[in-house]
Amino acid sequence: MSTVKLIDYEEAGPGVRQVYDDIMATRGTDWVNNFWKALALQPELLRRTWESVKAVMAPGVLDPLTKEMIYIAVSATNACDYCTNSHTAAARSKGMTDEMLSELMGVVGMANQTNALANGFQVDVDSAFKSGGLNS
Amino acid sequence: MSTVKLIDYEEAGPGVRQVYDDIMATRGTDWVNNFWKALALQPELLRRTWESVKAVMAPGVLDPLTKEMIYIAVSATNACDYCTNSHTAAARSKGMTDEMLSELMGVVGMANQTNALANGFQVDVDSAFKSGGLNS
Amino acid sequence: MSTVKLIDYEEAGPGVRQVYDDIMATRGTDWVNNFWKALALQPELLRRTWESVKAVMAPGVLDPLTKEMIYIAVSATNACDYCTNSHTAAARSKGMTDEMLSELMGVVGMANQTNALANGFQVDVDSAFKSGGLNS
Amino acid sequence: MSTVKLIDYEEAGPGVRQVYDDIMATRGTDWVNNFWKALALQPELLRRTWESVKAVMAPGVLDPLTKEMIYIAVSATNACDYCTNSHTAAARSKGMTDEMLSELMGVVGMANQTNALANGFQVDVDSAFKSGGLNS
Amino acid sequence: MSTVKLIDYEEAGPGVRQVYDDIMATRGTDWVNNFWKALALQPELLRRTWESVKAVMAPGVLDPLTKEMIYIAVSATNACDYCTNSHTAAARSKGMTDEMLSELMGVVGMANQTNALANGFQVDVDSAFKSGGLNS
Amino acid sequence: MSTVKLIDYEEAGPGVRQVYDDIMATRGTDWVNNFWKALALQPELLRRTWESVKAVMAPGVLDPLTKEMIYIAVSATNACDYCTNSHTAAARSKGMTDEMLSELMGVVGMANQTNALANGFQVDVDSAFKSGGLNS
Repeated sequence: MSTVKLIDYEEAGPGVRQVYDDIMATRGTDWVNNFWKALALQPELLRRTWESVKAVMAPGVLDPLTKEMIYIAVSATNACDYCTNSHTAAARSKGMTDEMLSELMGVVGMANQTNALANGFQVDVDSAFKSGGLNS
Repeated sequence: MSTVKLIDYEEAGPGVRQVYDDIMATRGTDWVNNFWKALALQPELLRRTWESVKAVMAPGVLDPLTKEMIYIAVSATNACDYCTNSHTAAARSKGMTDEMLSELMGVVGMANQTNALANGFQVDVDSAFKSGGLNS
Repeated sequence: MSTVKLIDYEEAGPGVRQVYDDIMATRGTDWVNNFWKALALQPELLRRTWESVKAVMAPGVLDPLTKEMIYIAVSATNACDYCTNSHTAAARSKGMTDEMLSELMGVVGMANQTNALANGFQVDVDSAFKSGGLNS
Repeated sequence: MSTVKLIDYEEAGPGVRQVYDDIMATRGTDWVNNFWKALALQPELLRRTWESVKAVMAPGVLDPLTKEMIYIAVSATNACDYCTNSHTAAARSKGMTDEMLSELMGVVGMANQTNALANGFQVDVDSAFKSGGLNS
Repeated sequence: MSTVKLIDYEEAGPGVRQVYDDIMATRGTDWVNNFWKALALQPELLRRTWESVKAVMAPGVLDPLTKEMIYIAVSATNACDYCTNSHTAAARSKGMTDEMLSELMGVVGMANQTNALANGFQVDVDSAFKSGGLNS
Repeated sequence: MSTVKLIDYEEAGPGVRQVYDDIMATRGTDWVNNFWKALALQPELLRRTWESVKAVMAPGVLDPLTKEMIYIAVSATNACDYCTNSHTAAARSKGMTDEMLSELMGVVGMANQTNALANGFQVDVDSAFKSGGLNS
């Protein structure tokens, strides 16, 4: 169970309610998930985090589904159960199929493997890859 | 510098050369990067890892560029310098623009932030998110 | 459930009991938490770990509450549920308020975000920051 | 070297310059460090990240030096060289002595050790610690 | 609960059944654990991962029990509950005693502590240790 | 470069010199590596850490070489360059061959891959694996 009191809509002050309203409006839902309720003790932390998530996950040069899959990739790597479940659910609601999840996790697993190998062997970055290939 | 001897093409045995040839053919390049040379001491490890990476990164229900960006997301989270540089270079060669890299990293940064918050507050998974929304 | 047998006081040998007694005396409690019971199979591991934790968490140039909050920061980053819960409880018992926990996690979340960004963009350390500003 | 082009003040647009000006004014310096220059390709990412860091690191119920030390704790755990160096430098400039850094790292090292032990033995959270002691 | 449907033997296609049969034959068991059932949605991911695990865990210059203990070390560090439990069980079945598990975790805890200290103090690699002592 | 001043033997006080002498005597060397010099600002941290490392790495039910390889496994997973290099050097000096290092890293890579898959798919621990097979 959460280590902080979760703030429900009913007991929330106006600043928190405003964020909750925006979360529900943006997502077209009628409930707010526990993550946000855990931040609401500090209304500014709640507001800032929500504004950032909303901006980051909005359509841009990357589409929203791709962004949700990147979120899953990071969450699986960080062993964050809450984030893995919530963003897998979000990705499904945006059209991710079982095949896509499976293929995504294939890449994530492989990346974690080769990350460990490169770090473990202390492999030097090839000159062609320096700066992420920025100047090549 | 690498903690194992890097095996160059000239000194490699036929099994290793076969993998090196396939790496170059698959990528349309005339050189093999250090990562593979570090695995070549154990030809089976080299072959297995390459076969897996080749399969995982091939086009499927996710396109190759999306896969490279997922690789970057995991590598940034794991603090793997080699992997971050090499897959950023690979993503650029497949069309990733500066804007896409910047937007990608915005998501990666946000995911690492909210992962820490969810783990730190020990937030319970909402029932609607259980099983990644599989049954909802 | 724990992957090793937890050793209760009643079944413990004299060396383990001595450590358990010191844990209870130091903390002013009449029970020993599961973490220590899981180490007790190897009395030396138990003794060494307890001696180190006791020394590290004692008042010094940093006060005990600050130290508990640093423990929470590391535990949230490492996704250690046991440690996050136990050190949040310990910090509360030393005076951490909800506001302090919330502000602490704001910093922890931000640090995880900017860590990922700095690693993901492979940003070079500015010369003024080299050696942690030791010589500037 | 950075995988994105660093944007210097001279070549920056007005939105980026405004953030750079605020960074320098807030810190009382006449230069901007590389981290921010790496975010400036996406002015919104730069602005959002800076606004959050500024808010999170401002004095609150925790003092700014404590916050810098928490930043170091997370950065050491995440193996972020840039962040470790830059926040160690920042903590020094706010009064952290060698003794404080040394004592801080003692806690960070210990926390990483016991995190691994608790996760490795899969120790159950004691009932008194559940919810971080919120209800006890 | 798993974020993907677990594929049982009865509902599996021939390719998946072939891998399941090999898992049971290799291990001398009459059941397949959940991990493999979670991969079976993508038969190729299942096959590749199993082939790699089988090869990596087979006797070589390192014995199978040592390999299981290395698996535990990584799983404890990554906070992977499933992997920690399953590989601790596997190591027990291969002869790991409580004393060995306890001593193993002592090393794992210590390694995580000194890793954090070395990263936190940004200690330079001594020249004698460069390249992992390859040339010394 | 290190974020703390490294304390050389010549400038060290008697307590630090005693630890340095023990490090050199235990290892049969005539020099002390940077890691210990970085801890010496806080003689108690130095002494405690060295006592623990010495105890943990001494022969027990696991042999010293196996322990060094476990150290490498953790260090590769944590992206600790210093630790990876120093413990690879130590393992080599205790008899680790290139073949052993290569096979070790094969396991480490695989463990990181399957850790990410198990966490990413949120696979439930099979009942036979619960408590690490302690009761089965």
